[in-house]
Amino acid sequence: MIAEISPRAQKVIDTLRKFVNEECIPNEERYERELGVGAERWEREPPVVDELRAKAQELGLWNLFLPKEYKEGAGFTNYEYAHMCEIMGTCSSLAPTATNSNAPDTGNMEVLAKYGNEQQKQKWLVPLLQGRTRSAFAMTEPAVPSSNATNIDCRLIRTQGGYIVNGKKYWISNAGHPRLSLFLAMVRSGKTVQEIMDSPVKTGEYDIHKQHSVVIIPANAPGVTVVRPLTVFGYDDAPHGHCEVIFDNVFIPSENMILGEGRGFEIIQGRLGPGRLHHAMRAVGTAERALRLLINRALNREIEGVLLSDRGVIIEWIAKSRIEIDACRLLVLNASHAVDIKGARNSKKEIAMAKVEVPNLVLKIVDRAIQLFGASGVGQDTKLAEMYAHTRTLRLADGPDEVHLQQLGRNEIKQFKRNYDGKSRL
Amino acid sequence: MIAEISPRAQKVIDTLRKFVNEECIPNEERYERELGVGAERWEREPPVVDELRAKAQELGLWNLFLPKEYKEGAGFTNYEYAHMCEIMGTCSSLAPTATNSNAPDTGNMEVLAKYGNEQQKQKWLVPLLQGRTRSAFAMTEPAVPSSNATNIDCRLIRTQGGYIVNGKKYWISNAGHPRLSLFLAMVRSGKTVQEIMDSPVKTGEYDIHKQHSVVIIPANAPGVTVVRPLTVFGYDDAPHGHCEVIFDNVFIPSENMILGEGRGFEIIQGRLGPGRLHHAMRAVGTAERALRLLINRALNREIEGVLLSDRGVIIEWIAKSRIEIDACRLLVLNASHAVDIKGARNSKKEIAMAKVEVPNLVLKIVDRAIQLFGASGVGQDTKLAEMYAHTRTLRLADGPDEVHLQQLGRNEIKQFKRNYDGKSRL
Amino acid sequence: MIAEISPRAQKVIDTLRKFVNEECIPNEERYERELGVGAERWEREPPVVDELRAKAQELGLWNLFLPKEYKEGAGFTNYEYAHMCEIMGTCSSLAPTATNSNAPDTGNMEVLAKYGNEQQKQKWLVPLLQGRTRSAFAMTEPAVPSSNATNIDCRLIRTQGGYIVNGKKYWISNAGHPRLSLFLAMVRSGKTVQEIMDSPVKTGEYDIHKQHSVVIIPANAPGVTVVRPLTVFGYDDAPHGHCEVIFDNVFIPSENMILGEGRGFEIIQGRLGPGRLHHAMRAVGTAERALRLLINRALNREIEGVLLSDRGVIIEWIAKSRIEIDACRLLVLNASHAVDIKGARNSKKEIAMAKVEVPNLVLKIVDRAIQLFGASGVGQDTKLAEMYAHTRTLRLADGPDEVHLQQLGRNEIKQFKRNYDGKSRL
Amino acid sequence: MIAEISPRAQKVIDTLRKFVNEECIPNEERYERELGVGAERWEREPPVVDELRAKAQELGLWNLFLPKEYKEGAGFTNYEYAHMCEIMGTCSSLAPTATNSNAPDTGNMEVLAKYGNEQQKQKWLVPLLQGRTRSAFAMTEPAVPSSNATNIDCRLIRTQGGYIVNGKKYWISNAGHPRLSLFLAMVRSGKTVQEIMDSPVKTGEYDIHKQHSVVIIPANAPGVTVVRPLTVFGYDDAPHGHCEVIFDNVFIPSENMILGEGRGFEIIQGRLGPGRLHHAMRAVGTAERALRLLINRALNREIEGVLLSDRGVIIEWIAKSRIEIDACRLLVLNASHAVDIKGARNSKKEIAMAKVEVPNLVLKIVDRAIQLFGASGVGQDTKLAEMYAHTRTLRLADGPDEVHLQQLGRNEIKQFKRNYDGKSRL
Repeated sequence: MIAEISPRAQKVIDTLRKFVNEECIPNEERYERELGVGAERWEREPPVVDELRAKAQELGLWNLFLPKEYKEGAGFTNYEYAHMCEIMGTCSSLAPTATNSNAPDTGNMEVLAKYGNEQQKQKWLVPLLQGRTRSAFAMTEPAVPSSNATNIDCRLIRTQGGYIVNGKKYWISNAGHPRLSLFLAMVRSGKTVQEIMDSPVKTGEYDIHKQHSVVIIPANAPGVTVVRPLTVFGYDDAPHGHCEVIFDNVFIPSENMILGEGRGFEIIQGRLGPGRLHHAMRAVGTAERALRLLINRALNREIEGVLLSDRGVIIEWIAKSRIEIDACRLLVLNASHAVDIKGARNSKKEIAMAKVEVPNLVLKIVDRAIQLFGASGVGQDTKLAEMYAHTRTLRLADGPDEVHLQQLGRNEIKQFKRNYDGKSRL
Repeated sequence: MIAEISPRAQKVIDTLRKFVNEECIPNEERYERELGVGAERWEREPPVVDELRAKAQELGLWNLFLPKEYKEGAGFTNYEYAHMCEIMGTCSSLAPTATNSNAPDTGNMEVLAKYGNEQQKQKWLVPLLQGRTRSAFAMTEPAVPSSNATNIDCRLIRTQGGYIVNGKKYWISNAGHPRLSLFLAMVRSGKTVQEIMDSPVKTGEYDIHKQHSVVIIPANAPGVTVVRPLTVFGYDDAPHGHCEVIFDNVFIPSENMILGEGRGFEIIQGRLGPGRLHHAMRAVGTAERALRLLINRALNREIEGVLLSDRGVIIEWIAKSRIEIDACRLLVLNASHAVDIKGARNSKKEIAMAKVEVPNLVLKIVDRAIQLFGASGVGQDTKLAEMYAHTRTLRLADGPDEVHLQQLGRNEIKQFKRNYDGKSRL
Repeated sequence: MIAEISPRAQKVIDTLRKFVNEECIPNEERYERELGVGAERWEREPPVVDELRAKAQELGLWNLFLPKEYKEGAGFTNYEYAHMCEIMGTCSSLAPTATNSNAPDTGNMEVLAKYGNEQQKQKWLVPLLQGRTRSAFAMTEPAVPSSNATNIDCRLIRTQGGYIVNGKKYWISNAGHPRLSLFLAMVRSGKTVQEIMDSPVKTGEYDIHKQHSVVIIPANAPGVTVVRPLTVFGYDDAPHGHCEVIFDNVFIPSENMILGEGRGFEIIQGRLGPGRLHHAMRAVGTAERALRLLINRALNREIEGVLLSDRGVIIEWIAKSRIEIDACRLLVLNASHAVDIKGARNSKKEIAMAKVEVPNLVLKIVDRAIQLFGASGVGQDTKLAEMYAHTRTLRLADGPDEVHLQQLGRNEIKQFKRNYDGKSRL
Repeated sequence: MIAEISPRAQKVIDTLRKFVNEECIPNEERYERELGVGAERWEREPPVVDELRAKAQELGLWNLFLPKEYKEGAGFTNYEYAHMCEIMGTCSSLAPTATNSNAPDTGNMEVLAKYGNEQQKQKWLVPLLQGRTRSAFAMTEPAVPSSNATNIDCRLIRTQGGYIVNGKKYWISNAGHPRLSLFLAMVRSGKTVQEIMDSPVKTGEYDIHKQHSVVIIPANAPGVTVVRPLTVFGYDDAPHGHCEVIFDNVFIPSENMILGEGRGFEIIQGRLGPGRLHHAMRAVGTAERALRLLINRALNREIEGVLLSDRGVIIEWIAKSRIEIDACRLLVLNASHAVDIKGARNSKKEIAMAKVEVPNLVLKIVDRAIQLFGASGVGQDTKLAEMYAHTRTLRLADGPDEVHLQQLGRNEIKQFKRNYDGKSRL
């Protein structure tokens, strides 16, 4: 309703909706069962995943995310892709993976497609596009506030024929995956923040945005240790996980440098904006699913002889959830369309608004569903607690709410100054 | 960004923005001054209003609201008009009146244009369109929950050559206006709710939606008494006011019946939907104005040597306000566009979502501005407390939040049943 | 339940409750009627007030507030008086005045009793205690953030036989009262903040807490102008009002200096703490009254054939209101008792917690009542909108929420450092 | 501050605080380590627990909960015990267990002490009091809304020499514990709800409160199956767990009936009230711990060169958390004291207010702490996500918020009718 959807995209959207509702959601339990218990959870992907991937490929539901600028791309607009993300978000354990459209692989493939050279693409991108391998994006570090990437401190030092990497990363999604082939790692190849702060000049070799690089670290390189999965409210999210990873004197060949030393910022800048919108839009799908479960429960549970769906308090919950979901969707679609027409760099405000607002509202909706399900809502027999835990991380990932709110607020003040300063009547 | 705006509408929008910023807002203080004190506040419209009306007419900013279905109409879509409402909402004491686009005259003119016969139009609509007279819509009654119009009890009885009206109405906007020429009154011409409930049949003369009529009651008819202005948080909103009105054996001629006896519901149904959107969209403008004042204050007030605009808490208020305003705007534009493409009757959900959500969020924003202004925020030296009081009424007017939420929730449940009932996996 | 109430206090509490319920509340309408319209509202106190005052005196319900340290005092503890404040808060237009226990006179009498010399007491305190005169406390100024009293800038200059006062004050409660006899004014008798900041030393004559004095300014002194009442939302609160006042070369004799030049801080410090608790506790009474009205409305209004008191949403409002009211009461009683046992100076934390939390919760309760009453809730036929407006000012008076929250938070951090710093496990 | 604390209790409180801070909290990591991974987590209690239990016994910190009515009791008032619960709640994984004062064993021991006969006490209570065994309370069932115990449907049928039990229970805490010796089970020994509803009389054998019994089911009885642990968010809470349990034709001897057939309601009524307060008060301790962690993080983390503890937004979080914690504590202490002076049955209102309000506020505080810790807040390196998950269940356990709010609201309405009905002025 905000912008046009091409007939081709509409057809994919419709096929995807049917696929998710009829193939993915009914297989969620099988997935959990096949995942198993203990160590085996990390050893292989449940067979149902490969079955679904085969079906998705047949249906043309594969690699839906790359925009048409890339020759590998499905060529959908961000606005169109947002609709697909919402549908995939209703079954987040299976749908994104089944269509090879899951984070962080999507963003990594985008980086390789956009900035990789031919050789890098052949070696690393092609298998990812085919769904044969997985990738991780190694940015966050425990020791520094990583929402500001200038703090990244994992050290890259030139050596003969390549580089040596040393550092500790954490919350690295996919790092536990049995098919992991590479880390795209944000590393410091230049000065420290302290050195830059101490320097009187801030340009040239002291330009704070030229101290970092993005490199490819093969998953099986000597010195790479996946220490442990970090849990999200008790969930380990096997088999991909969010892991602590140590790079201890890891050697990588020169050819693994992407774009060139010191160009890390340039690379990650384009990556993060749309990625945030994908997260937000999947969260809208999560909320739709939670509301569906909530209504179904309300229609099937009596308290004191009255169906929950006939109780005013619950009806009000449903109404508020509908309003919040639709407001969220409009914010994300609005931002997606902004990216389409003026680029991510000029859509920071729209992206940030969706990035902050959506998870906060979705959490309210999922929490209502948990409350209506009672004890079952917090346990493993519904997906609700898991949805809550995952959505909760979105208030932190790619920068906490508070950092984005400060930026938004400051920009609003700047904008005001440009428009109104010196006017007597406001 | 949701739909197209024609070049003609865009031009009006631009002209209107300039007119409001440069002519209306700077005259707010003069308006308050000319309004005076005591009884004189009700005796004449401050001269500045007629001056502004003349300017607006010159600029082509006149009667902006009637859609193109009416030959009297400016012909803008609801989507386009919503943009104009937002601008007018930034100066709600002057801009809507100056452009002859103020409630409730807009809705009343729409009723006359749509349902009035030629004679009624000549006599009552034309002077309204010219801005020479004012009109009131007499629906709400103190004794019944008027959010459900079937409860309306003001009695119309046929008599020779016309009708006799008896009843008490309250919160009748414009009823105190010195130029008031007519009331459009919703009256009961048929059975009472009790009679209908007691009847075994609910069709024909017992159809609950055929018991009411809309009639024209001349403001100067004998038996019409404007008892007193009701206040909104202490504001009397002179010179138009929101008054208690008694119709005591008021005679009106047959020619004052609109469309026909028993057709009241048909008439008001079309009236209310878009009217709610206009209120909501003006409220978005109110919020923009409040945010502007808030930022300006923050830029000019120090506490303990630190500008308020440099304090994190205040910056966060600004950011949240921006998100809330933009979410509100998207909800209203989305609903306005829905009315344009599928009609008000099929857009009930979209209208209700905007109707409920917008005032609640706008109140938060205005409240923050009040808080930042301190004592000045609650007094008469800023418009903030008045904005708050007015916006607060929008959570009640045309049905309280709770009634709309129950309807929204119930519809959501119905929708769910249509889509998912009997499915095993949701 | 937190501390003991003496039998004497309990008897006063019981008598007061009966007096307020049977004499004050039933006379609210008469008070409004006798108040009249226009200018007359400021010219005399409605006769009902003096009648009630006579009755209250007979019943021993007079000057309930002064603690036993003062020979004029009724001698109740803060904890006991808090219970009386709650009862008076259920009828805030009449009960505090009827018992000569209304702000700001209470605080002013306390200042005179504590710091005044014998002559000052005879001349100014005695008539106040007898209820023959009224007083105002002139502290807040429009030009400076007055929540930090070091900013007060109204100028006192020594002259022959006395002082000259020049400055502008606003939001001066009681300043419009026909029986006003004096202003207690906080004035700057020393250096400006700027001068102090520029000075390398901060002690002696540059001690920032020794630049202000409190003086008595007779209401009828030449040069005193009550410019206008400021409105709270739209209420002018006649006949006492909250006024803008100009002191233009006002001469006062030396004997009008309280305690001595430069001792203003010492004086106001003791005044503000308990005063904030009185406001908070009256607000608890306001909330009880609003809840009572809400429940009564719910028991007498049907929507779609169902009593509002049988609707789950409304029942939940009532339950939440009860929880919030009781939490508020506990916070104020806890703070009052703290003042009793360790003094106001050592109870800053407890006072601030009540000062901030209570008005915020009470506003929610009053707002729910407004919503349930619909249009009547915002108008003059219930007291609800007026309650809301008045309670809203408590988030600003004596310092806005945000200032108190910053102090509370910083103190909490300091406390943490004292208790836990350097400990490895927290 | 609400009531007296005896010197004996104060000494225990002081000793307990020291024990928890110096012995329990520093051992949390060791506990997690010793707990191990996979199946071993359920096989034995980590050795640190027994060490701490030995120390606690030496210090006289053992079985702190039984009131003096029981000869086995430590004899503290509910008010005194509430203070101990708060301290234990700061280390909820170790402190309650270490002092043999953990739910559900406390409530079970209370039932056995109050209603068990001598033989039952010797066999089942004594080992529990000595800390050698554990017990579970089997009430909740997946198939019925168990917040109303009349719905409990697990079937008890008389047989020769005893009874046969059949049914499915879930969320049975402690059911996975290696030292589990018994279930206290609420079972239906009489009519079904349907049979009672169909019966014209509701007394005698159709009295809805006489259809249930409480029986002792030995943990090792044939037919008892602990099916699986249910997770709370992703936590399994080994080694005690919250399990699904099936009773399949389980025989129990007649001597295992407590008090007599049909007296189940009588038994559980006394159990639940104070238990809810213990949960609430431990939650206050949880919040204190979370705030402590939050402040410590704020003092040690810089963003853009500014310590988080110097940022206004964070300082405000701390202040609000302090207010909320203190309000929660006052509500629980107030309810505990009410139970002491008028009994649990007459303190339903006070208990319900604390039961509902405390978890909701504590969740806000823990959530703020999570947000400040960023990714570490949701993972296993802080206890915060686990605190959140556990506290979230308190909004559901012993009846969801909504059920209690409806009761509270309805009682408030009844109270109003008693006090005000028929009065003209409210």
